[in-house]
Amino acid sequence: MSNSFGNIFRLTSFGESHGPGVGGVIDGFPAGIEVDLDFIQSELNRRRPGQSKLTTPRKESDKVEFLSGIFEGRSTGCPIGFLVQNANQHSTDYDNIRNVYRPSHADYTYTQKYGLRDHRGGGRSSARETIARCVAGALAKLALKQLGISITAYTSQVGNIALPHDYKAYDLTLTESNDVRCPDAEIAEKMATLISEVKAEGDTIGGIISCIIRGCPVGLGEPAFGKLHAALGNAMLSINAVKGFEYGMGFSGVSMRGSEQNDVFYNTEQGVQTRTNRSGGIQGGISNGEDIYFRVAFKPVATLLQEQETVTIDGASTTLKARGRHDACVLPRAVPIIESMAAMTILDYYLLNKATRL
Amino acid sequence: MSNSFGNIFRLTSFGESHGPGVGGVIDGFPAGIEVDLDFIQSELNRRRPGQSKLTTPRKESDKVEFLSGIFEGRSTGCPIGFLVQNANQHSTDYDNIRNVYRPSHADYTYTQKYGLRDHRGGGRSSARETIARCVAGALAKLALKQLGISITAYTSQVGNIALPHDYKAYDLTLTESNDVRCPDAEIAEKMATLISEVKAEGDTIGGIISCIIRGCPVGLGEPAFGKLHAALGNAMLSINAVKGFEYGMGFSGVSMRGSEQNDVFYNTEQGVQTRTNRSGGIQGGISNGEDIYFRVAFKPVATLLQEQETVTIDGASTTLKARGRHDACVLPRAVPIIESMAAMTILDYYLLNKATRL
Amino acid sequence: MSNSFGNIFRLTSFGESHGPGVGGVIDGFPAGIEVDLDFIQSELNRRRPGQSKLTTPRKESDKVEFLSGIFEGRSTGCPIGFLVQNANQHSTDYDNIRNVYRPSHADYTYTQKYGLRDHRGGGRSSARETIARCVAGALAKLALKQLGISITAYTSQVGNIALPHDYKAYDLTLTESNDVRCPDAEIAEKMATLISEVKAEGDTIGGIISCIIRGCPVGLGEPAFGKLHAALGNAMLSINAVKGFEYGMGFSGVSMRGSEQNDVFYNTEQGVQTRTNRSGGIQGGISNGEDIYFRVAFKPVATLLQEQETVTIDGASTTLKARGRHDACVLPRAVPIIESMAAMTILDYYLLNKATRL
Amino acid sequence: MSNSFGNIFRLTSFGESHGPGVGGVIDGFPAGIEVDLDFIQSELNRRRPGQSKLTTPRKESDKVEFLSGIFEGRSTGCPIGFLVQNANQHSTDYDNIRNVYRPSHADYTYTQKYGLRDHRGGGRSSARETIARCVAGALAKLALKQLGISITAYTSQVGNIALPHDYKAYDLTLTESNDVRCPDAEIAEKMATLISEVKAEGDTIGGIISCIIRGCPVGLGEPAFGKLHAALGNAMLSINAVKGFEYGMGFSGVSMRGSEQNDVFYNTEQGVQTRTNRSGGIQGGISNGEDIYFRVAFKPVATLLQEQETVTIDGASTTLKARGRHDACVLPRAVPIIESMAAMTILDYYLLNKATRL
Repeated sequence: MSNSFGNIFRLTSFGESHGPGVGGVIDGFPAGIEVDLDFIQSELNRRRPGQSKLTTPRKESDKVEFLSGIFEGRSTGCPIGFLVQNANQHSTDYDNIRNVYRPSHADYTYTQKYGLRDHRGGGRSSARETIARCVAGALAKLALKQLGISITAYTSQVGNIALPHDYKAYDLTLTESNDVRCPDAEIAEKMATLISEVKAEGDTIGGIISCIIRGCPVGLGEPAFGKLHAALGNAMLSINAVKGFEYGMGFSGVSMRGSEQNDVFYNTEQGVQTRTNRSGGIQGGISNGEDIYFRVAFKPVATLLQEQETVTIDGASTTLKARGRHDACVLPRAVPIIESMAAMTILDYYLLNKATRL
Repeated sequence: MSNSFGNIFRLTSFGESHGPGVGGVIDGFPAGIEVDLDFIQSELNRRRPGQSKLTTPRKESDKVEFLSGIFEGRSTGCPIGFLVQNANQHSTDYDNIRNVYRPSHADYTYTQKYGLRDHRGGGRSSARETIARCVAGALAKLALKQLGISITAYTSQVGNIALPHDYKAYDLTLTESNDVRCPDAEIAEKMATLISEVKAEGDTIGGIISCIIRGCPVGLGEPAFGKLHAALGNAMLSINAVKGFEYGMGFSGVSMRGSEQNDVFYNTEQGVQTRTNRSGGIQGGISNGEDIYFRVAFKPVATLLQEQETVTIDGASTTLKARGRHDACVLPRAVPIIESMAAMTILDYYLLNKATRL
Repeated sequence: MSNSFGNIFRLTSFGESHGPGVGGVIDGFPAGIEVDLDFIQSELNRRRPGQSKLTTPRKESDKVEFLSGIFEGRSTGCPIGFLVQNANQHSTDYDNIRNVYRPSHADYTYTQKYGLRDHRGGGRSSARETIARCVAGALAKLALKQLGISITAYTSQVGNIALPHDYKAYDLTLTESNDVRCPDAEIAEKMATLISEVKAEGDTIGGIISCIIRGCPVGLGEPAFGKLHAALGNAMLSINAVKGFEYGMGFSGVSMRGSEQNDVFYNTEQGVQTRTNRSGGIQGGISNGEDIYFRVAFKPVATLLQEQETVTIDGASTTLKARGRHDACVLPRAVPIIESMAAMTILDYYLLNKATRL
Repeated sequence: MSNSFGNIFRLTSFGESHGPGVGGVIDGFPAGIEVDLDFIQSELNRRRPGQSKLTTPRKESDKVEFLSGIFEGRSTGCPIGFLVQNANQHSTDYDNIRNVYRPSHADYTYTQKYGLRDHRGGGRSSARETIARCVAGALAKLALKQLGISITAYTSQVGNIALPHDYKAYDLTLTESNDVRCPDAEIAEKMATLISEVKAEGDTIGGIISCIIRGCPVGLGEPAFGKLHAALGNAMLSINAVKGFEYGMGFSGVSMRGSEQNDVFYNTEQGVQTRTNRSGGIQGGISNGEDIYFRVAFKPVATLLQEQETVTIDGASTTLKARGRHDACVLPRAVPIIESMAAMTILDYYLLNKATRL
């Protein structure tokens, strides 16, 4: 069950980095939606390696083939199978880790859990697994667009270089105008410089991605164990290298008083709204119609082009220095993945909410 | 489905604060476990209101009655039904909110989603719902104890008063020695003073609870969408007032280099271990045998004994000042809830992991 | 998970025959439905032992107490907990089976699976477990009534005394006019006589219940693994003593030609209909708007008031003759259980179907 | 969710008859199992059209490509993606049904449910969807073989030509020795003749498949809603054209007395066994170690090479005579599908049962 995500709208994914390909099955996508293939491919391209000098130089075309569920340009309500073939594999780059556990990778835990592992490129634990998420997320975005719901993420921190303000201070349409995917060009430049420096040292760096969901109707989210923010948190924490999730005021709100943090209601022509939105658009686990916003913490990539101590699968001490082509910072490429997981979650909860009343 | 938690070991809960009671059904609890009823009641007592001068003065005895699934002191493998009757209800305390939305509560979103709500005491959104979690969590702890797994949470921050060190610096057996449930007596005293001050002002305050899982075997957790930390995050974010979750280095790790954060492996007589544990005991979504630790952020309680602006269900402007008996800080009583959700998650993933090989 | 039934509308049940009681939690019941408590109790009364001279003389009042999810007479969308207390227990009637396996009962398999069992009255395998189904089914019927969907079952065969025609030949409002719940008074009388004869011999007898669902809209059912008839079959086969399920022409249709069995379409003022309904109201797993009908086979009750060979839990040969008060034929009391499982299934699939389009 | 089957071992399938292909994702297959690709292909070949003169003359090679989850010949515990490309498509054969509903097909219900349908070859409702089941079933068989569990199905009735005895009277290794897959060569010949006659008339015929599961350990099955026979019934009823399921004595047992049907226990050197097995190897929903056997009823294929009345999607009256290449009787090709669904169910319940005790 661990390779499926969602309740009504559900992605089941498969694939390793060095097998034939990565793909999945999308079940529960509403019938009758126009499927814009160019948009879906453009979303995949935002995640693709080799898209800029900041990312790994691996060239992967990542062309998605749809195998079912679409007829004459529209979704049929039947499951949508898809495949992105692997290409440009350098499996021999990984011969040196066949019998060695890379520090802070999944090599050790997979081997212990399953009794064996596909070591090439990290196998199933490879970030290549997120391709399936981007395809499903792009489809979800197409459905959400019809509902007037939009989702935008951006890099808000790399290392200790952080945007000083919250999302309302920025023009988020600028996010795609630089390689870091940060809406402030000046700070983006500093982030890019930091990433280049870290890369030159064979080291890596983490950061934070912020995400905004606009236009979400009131009522999405299921108490008690299906709270909308718990679903979003679960979605984000399922992405490789994510170590934390907060929404609304998050960790910074713990030192505030209730009188400082509460969002009072007032009436408008559009209905009840809140004067502030410290809650982050969700109250009691249910969306309240305000913007939903959250932040996701990424640790630095574990693969270093530096010598590290480790052990072999037989327990002997050794050292390891990665070969191959790796990202020094995953944030720029992770932005569309965050958006995809958010889109899948919101569509799923939109569909669930339809069952609230007869 | 939103009132069920877990895959194999699963709690389904019910109940509002002012109806007959709160309870649930626990399915998938392994057969043959000795059920220590005194232990379970003692866990419920840790959550009970009125246990100290820091908590709401509501006196609730919260006695659990088991209705099935236990025979001659042992679990039978059949579902365990249980009920905690409500008592000491002051439903008229809530008459004033029948037609008014309390700021930052679930009143508005429930009414919009369902078309009606039980306003008394917050209805289903009441913190009283967590009673069921504590019962199920206590049972899970009994099973985990047989496996050598222990779970300990403590208050690590209230407002801006925080423990300066991580869990290894404290004797966690001292956690229960003070009303705040903080293992450092001196800092606990400061926290208690802050809570009292805030309470005197009719205000509220948030904080952070830290939690440690010791003795967890290697191999728990299911990639890709069933990562152990995603399950823990989902569990914690399902608790009322939680706004954030981080594990391992969490948000503070985003500004570290990979070379600073990686945990290198070395061999010991007990098998492979890591020299450091910045990963927080989970790698690639699977437990690696080291201590699992995480932190959970709570916002200040929304119910204030202060006048606040709001609207009625008809949209008219009004003000509201809560009556009744409320916590100024939920952290002390939330410690056993955090532990319970963690225990339920770990037991569930322990059972799931048994299916990894034939 | 095995004690939960349904996807969106879901019953989770608990309880043994000789513990404190039997009950459950109903999740996903739509908000705003008027809850007619008298109707629910009347449904429970149809299942109650001691209701006629044909059933076990055990007197059980089976009063249902609702514990949550209902406010001022309407469902709130929150989980509905309920409890039916056990009473009139003669636990000592079962002392003789504590260490003996009753033939064709669940005693042996439970003991082997779980390592222990609650032997009193069959424990969890008792037919008393179906109380929870009748409560949930009665609620489902209340929702379905708003949608114009009705469900009616009746006893169509006891032993080899069978109704000669299908449901359209009978006035099903007569079903409740006799103890057997058969709409043909004359045949009902014969069935009653057979049951009395069998009972006098200390023996038992099986039979068939037929069920009709009228007013079901087109479109319920989810291909490929969620076919509506597969869901109905699963529901029926989950009832104790059921050995077979067929819908439409069922087993009798296997010797027909396609040209004899196909239902051709024609147009009417009410839309497309079929001239015949050999399909049983479901095509391709999806309801087509015609009557849904199916038949359920019950084996004779396993508990005999006759001496039978068996073994003890230690493997020693022995004989066993049941004591206590038992049904010689479960059919009359099973009619409301069949209806309940059907109602729960149809409501669940109605709610699922709402997610088919945006 | 409707395109997924199973709890722990789970197939999610996709694909239409006239799109790029049919495939799926298998999640929860135990790690470390040797994957015999030739065996899997041989199972697919048993289902393939064109394998004998009795089946449709469509030539489909149905070669399965595995896309993930297998490394160096063994399962890794990661999801197994697979694809069988469509070939030999005659889509224009279906132009005449684009705007017409075929009687007793899914055309009408799909169109009403989804608002559109892929009419070519029946789209998702095509029997081609069962390819995915055969692949997953073959994998399940490989795992079950390690556990000493075997599954064998055979055609026991075509039209009104039926095997007179139960499975113990036949040498089931002879099942594959004739085109009908019936273990009695003489009766197989009669069945084949009947199918040919029916085919010559442009008509179709139904039948019954019987299935035996040997070597199943005691303890599989989860009361109350996860009874093993309910899971098997659900699995079988999810196959196209299935109208009924019975196990043990099934419908024929309803006219027996309890004293005739009960299976008494006795002790043997191998442990407790039953002298008879009228229960069909399952008691109280849990396997008891005896042979599990059940029967599945198939209606005649709906596609006729005869003129039939029907309506267009605009409601106009018309007639329809199928073109293309169709089976006159699906039974011979359905035998491996029945076995596959049974194998998937048993493996899933074997894995579930591992969680019964710590």
